[in-house]
Amino acid sequence: MYLARVYVTLKPAVNDPQGNTVLSALKLLGFAGVIGVRVGKYLELSLEAADKAAAEAQVAEACKRLLANPVIEDYRFQVEELASATAKP
Amino acid sequence: MYLARVYVTLKPAVNDPQGNTVLSALKLLGFAGVIGVRVGKYLELSLEAADKAAAEAQVAEACKRLLANPVIEDYRFQVEELASATAKP
Repeated sequence: MYLARVYVTLKPAVNDPQGNTVLSALKLLGFAGVIGVRVGKYLELSLEAADKAAAEAQVAEACKRLLANPVIEDYRFQVEELASATAKP
Repeated sequence: MYLARVYVTLKPAVNDPQGNTVLSALKLLGFAGVIGVRVGKYLELSLEAADKAAAEAQVAEACKRLLANPVIEDYRFQVEELASATAKP
């Protein structure tokens, strides 16, 4: 089994109202040092695949087709193999 | 200037409807190998601080007070120093 950690972020030129709201809230709470906040998504996918390359191909395809909007978002991911407690059938 | 990368995830025991929805959508798209999805938040904070320890203290405090809900979420973060183009006043 593989674990993929996927990070989806808005492209730098895209406005981030959620990040701006978090920034305002932090300033209200007294965090004067914080000067910028960008909010993205973090996803953990567990998946079965023949090998690591196959898992990476699957995750890249999933990012392109569903997880990220390529018009306004960038994505990156890492795939690691998990020691499985149960043997594969 | 420092850049903090903050990862906020639901605790393992907490139900994740958003993750379940993404999982269903991936299955509908034909990603049969994916067996679990958990959705979290990824935030990038830019902040000014006297040193890295002060930046880390600020980010930890921000996570506790605003960015994560400690009842249902875990958080972790990394802080790195950015080469600043402008000299500090």
